[in-house]
Amino acid sequence: MQILDRKEIENALSIERVFRLIEEGFIAYSQKKTVIPPVAAMQFENPPGDCHIKYGYLKEGSYFVVKIATGFPLNTKSGLPAGNGMIVLFSKKTGAPLVLFNDEGFLTDMRTAIAGAIAAKTLVPSHVECIGCVGTGAQAYYQLSLLPHVTRCRKVLIWGRDGEKARRLAKDPRLGHFSIQVAPTLDSLAASCNLIVTTTSSKAPLLFAHHIKPGTHITAVGADDIGKQELDPSLFRKADLVVCDSIAQCLSFGDTSHAVRSAAIKKEDLMELGALLANPLLGRKNDTQITICDLTGIAAQDLQIAIAAM
Amino acid sequence: MQILDRKEIENALSIERVFRLIEEGFIAYSQKKTVIPPVAAMQFENPPGDCHIKYGYLKEGSYFVVKIATGFPLNTKSGLPAGNGMIVLFSKKTGAPLVLFNDEGFLTDMRTAIAGAIAAKTLVPSHVECIGCVGTGAQAYYQLSLLPHVTRCRKVLIWGRDGEKARRLAKDPRLGHFSIQVAPTLDSLAASCNLIVTTTSSKAPLLFAHHIKPGTHITAVGADDIGKQELDPSLFRKADLVVCDSIAQCLSFGDTSHAVRSAAIKKEDLMELGALLANPLLGRKNDTQITICDLTGIAAQDLQIAIAAM
Repeated sequence: MQILDRKEIENALSIERVFRLIEEGFIAYSQKKTVIPPVAAMQFENPPGDCHIKYGYLKEGSYFVVKIATGFPLNTKSGLPAGNGMIVLFSKKTGAPLVLFNDEGFLTDMRTAIAGAIAAKTLVPSHVECIGCVGTGAQAYYQLSLLPHVTRCRKVLIWGRDGEKARRLAKDPRLGHFSIQVAPTLDSLAASCNLIVTTTSSKAPLLFAHHIKPGTHITAVGADDIGKQELDPSLFRKADLVVCDSIAQCLSFGDTSHAVRSAAIKKEDLMELGALLANPLLGRKNDTQITICDLTGIAAQDLQIAIAAM
Repeated sequence: MQILDRKEIENALSIERVFRLIEEGFIAYSQKKTVIPPVAAMQFENPPGDCHIKYGYLKEGSYFVVKIATGFPLNTKSGLPAGNGMIVLFSKKTGAPLVLFNDEGFLTDMRTAIAGAIAAKTLVPSHVECIGCVGTGAQAYYQLSLLPHVTRCRKVLIWGRDGEKARRLAKDPRLGHFSIQVAPTLDSLAASCNLIVTTTSSKAPLLFAHHIKPGTHITAVGADDIGKQELDPSLFRKADLVVCDSIAQCLSFGDTSHAVRSAAIKKEDLMELGALLANPLLGRKNDTQITICDLTGIAAQDLQIAIAAM
């Protein structure tokens, strides 16, 4: 088994190749050419934390993946990253582990951000006026860092529940090619932005229907577990198009699950990102529609980014 | 994260310490002092194989474990071991991976064999006449290699579906302290042995009620997945005591599940190994009883052997 550490993985990863492979992964998933069992999960109480295990394979492929991701939010108080974990790529012919990516969660951050960029590429209106970033953690940074691959817009408004963290992210030198302001309120962010990415670990809705103007696309990536929520169901009622990475998974948790449970939308009206990638005609019809893409993370992404990072 | 390979793990492991820790793990499990979600599993078709992920923690402990085990039976045709995998021990305080045991399945083999030895120690009659080993693979070897820790009997009869593999195991120099014969039939094995360990990957019952004489203890370790079976339900009907590593898991798969489904026994009559270890009075009453211990493998074993191997 080859063992790669975070630095080696960061240096070797070709972003272009990952984009292509992850798009292929979403398409294979939506065409039922994957085997992806439900996510395995554990919760911890003292300190609070969680561990998610995602695993699966492409039926036609040579590999299967097991990804272990942990989230311990209080770590940040002692200067440690909240997220950690690893990905292992196995041979589908022998069951032998081939490559261990000791990536400390980097590949998960990347594949999540790449999914956000793919969603944006597929669903934004023709002109992005300003990018709104709701949330100030690591994933907020990763989402912003990848959006230049899919939009020419370099104006960003950031809003966070912690104003100090928002100011720090706005000044992050790695995002120096953006013109970034901190938005005092979500109202002001949503009034200026027509591409909004939500990346918080909120357990109550932050964005409501009244916030969103026509012609806005929202990518929701924060609510990746039971109990988490960023978008109010009213927003789904107002949306013209709701796209999920996995309809089955988004019915079980994520913003969509809250919206379906409260009857703001019907599950029959949901579309999968892989279906949209395979047939772009299913997407946005004009520049006044409101679109939502709910990303909860599926093992096809972990598999494909691991293959790209081999 | 510390990374240990198989050789390092084999050299460092104290068998006595593992015995004690795994017994403590079974007791904690049966006293509901563990969090062990259901096993995560994937099946493969071409070639056939499976991947099981076991994970969990002791509520009072400092660690949690994730164990990935693969089984690809056709590997042996090309000289590769059928089993592989790894164990990762994480901090329950930060979610950080602490030790990766790149053990190629060794710790799983060991903790399974140690559970078998614990079951034998707890349930055998006062005098073991002869040890019967049903099966000829790696686990058959491991079970035999650990039984000297719990019985003075050195007579062994081996039966396997593949006679050549049975003869090879009988001559294994690592088992040179045993007097080993190959049994021509299961009838002859069961007629001579009052401690029988079943270690096959059979999908149909091998041992039936008529095989077993009074005063026999059977440890069944092979049927660790849906569809696998070694013991006919009739044998459970004849047994005086049926002990499971995990009643919940043994109702979902393993020999016990077949027996309960066919109404040969009721689930109310099952006992857990951890309960028996905590209170030996619950065990065998005399040397004529027939006892069965069904071992399907639980994450408490993986956790405890990982702690022992740190």
